Amino acid sequence: MTESERMDALQRRIGYRFQSIAHLRLAMTHRSHGSDNNERLEFLGDAILNMVIAQQLFQQFPEAREGQLSRLRARMVKGVTLAEIALEFDLGAHLLLGSGELKSGGFRRESILADAVESIIGAIYLDSGFDASRERILAWFSPRLGQLSLQDTQKDAKTRLQEYLQSRQQELPRYEVVDVRGEAHQQTFYVACNVPVLEKATKGTGSSRRIAEQDAAAVALDALGVERSPS
Amino acid sequence: MTESERMDALQRRIGYRFQSIAHLRLAMTHRSHGSDNNERLEFLGDAILNMVIAQQLFQQFPEAREGQLSRLRARMVKGVTLAEIALEFDLGAHLLLGSGELKSGGFRRESILADAVESIIGAIYLDSGFDASRERILAWFSPRLGQLSLQDTQKDAKTRLQEYLQSRQQELPRYEVVDVRGEAHQQTFYVACNVPVLEKATKGTGSSRRIAEQDAAAVALDALGVERSPS
Repeated sequence: MTESERMDALQRRIGYRFQSIAHLRLAMTHRSHGSDNNERLEFLGDAILNMVIAQQLFQQFPEAREGQLSRLRARMVKGVTLAEIALEFDLGAHLLLGSGELKSGGFRRESILADAVESIIGAIYLDSGFDASRERILAWFSPRLGQLSLQDTQKDAKTRLQEYLQSRQQELPRYEVVDVRGEAHQQTFYVACNVPVLEKATKGTGSSRRIAEQDAAAVALDALGVERSPS
Repeated sequence: MTESERMDALQRRIGYRFQSIAHLRLAMTHRSHGSDNNERLEFLGDAILNMVIAQQLFQQFPEAREGQLSRLRARMVKGVTLAEIALEFDLGAHLLLGSGELKSGGFRRESILADAVESIIGAIYLDSGFDASRERILAWFSPRLGQLSLQDTQKDAKTRLQEYLQSRQQELPRYEVVDVRGEAHQQTFYVACNVPVLEKATKGTGSSRRIAEQDAAAVALDALGVERSPS
């Protein structure tokens, strides 16, 4: 593929055709590549993204309180979510990186990918204004926004367990992977959660370490007699 | 003054006439007053404010790096600045507070005043859209934006002194007002900055305690051989 074919493909995936392709190229330029890079665009794009998502959640959840809106937004704009979008766009293949980052696989790094998504938002804004960038953000996030519910605003079990123990000045839990079973792409994780005030470690399982830890923390909350999910 | 005259006066100071005065009234209702309060509007207004200021700084400082833009924005949107704007609008006189907050002088509290400014931004957005809220933000902030310069992005001396000592795992400085001279409205503060690794406390003076502390910290940075203002 020629450079121009590659840029065409990228714009199709993003769903936006740049009037000035230099905007897109700048958005794809990581600071390791040189002093003309996407950091300023990222600053701009981050602010636009936060605002558009805030506005959308405000409308979508008329009953949500401020804290719930904040937590829903945090879920939407966090690095993991943005990196997922970057993967959908195959941004890694288009990033301009310095040689150090190239060698160390920077095109796979979550933070670099997430920043590039924000930079593209900034670039679309510069290229044709607020409405275009807003329209793209909502299109990219629409499946994720559609799946949100107010139940998602409950704090996760690990956070609640930690806060519960801290409020009682008790030692914090330690998590330990005690077993991993299954093939590489379909593993089950077994995690033990050691809460010093409980006699026995609680156990959790899940398809990732994170999920298994949440599971073990939820069991610990039960064992401590703490409600799992307050309103 | 009747209620409607007071609302008129407030709208004149803000520079915006609401189509639905209920939006303004909600923006002035603190959570201590009841469950129908300005917290959701504040969430919305905060995001709009951050975005409009980001966009303005991006344009105004084409040479600024991302870190500089971030610091300039933090200065603009911090609580102290918003509370100043609230005082210009005399918002304290219009706040609806619960009886507890009323008694404890909540109408003078910086955070409550700052939140009310963000709520008004959210209210204007709901009342007539993004362009109107953007126009008002830029009008309110215009004197402050006009005074900004890239030099302001340097970290202040106290912050740099603290970071320098922390990075060397050394004890942090203590500041002490050793003298205050002059009439009430024209005082000079004398502050000593005790840095454990320095033999003698350094001294600073200024028209406020804060300025005197900065001065003393700058002298300590000199004594430690640290550059006062890196680029």
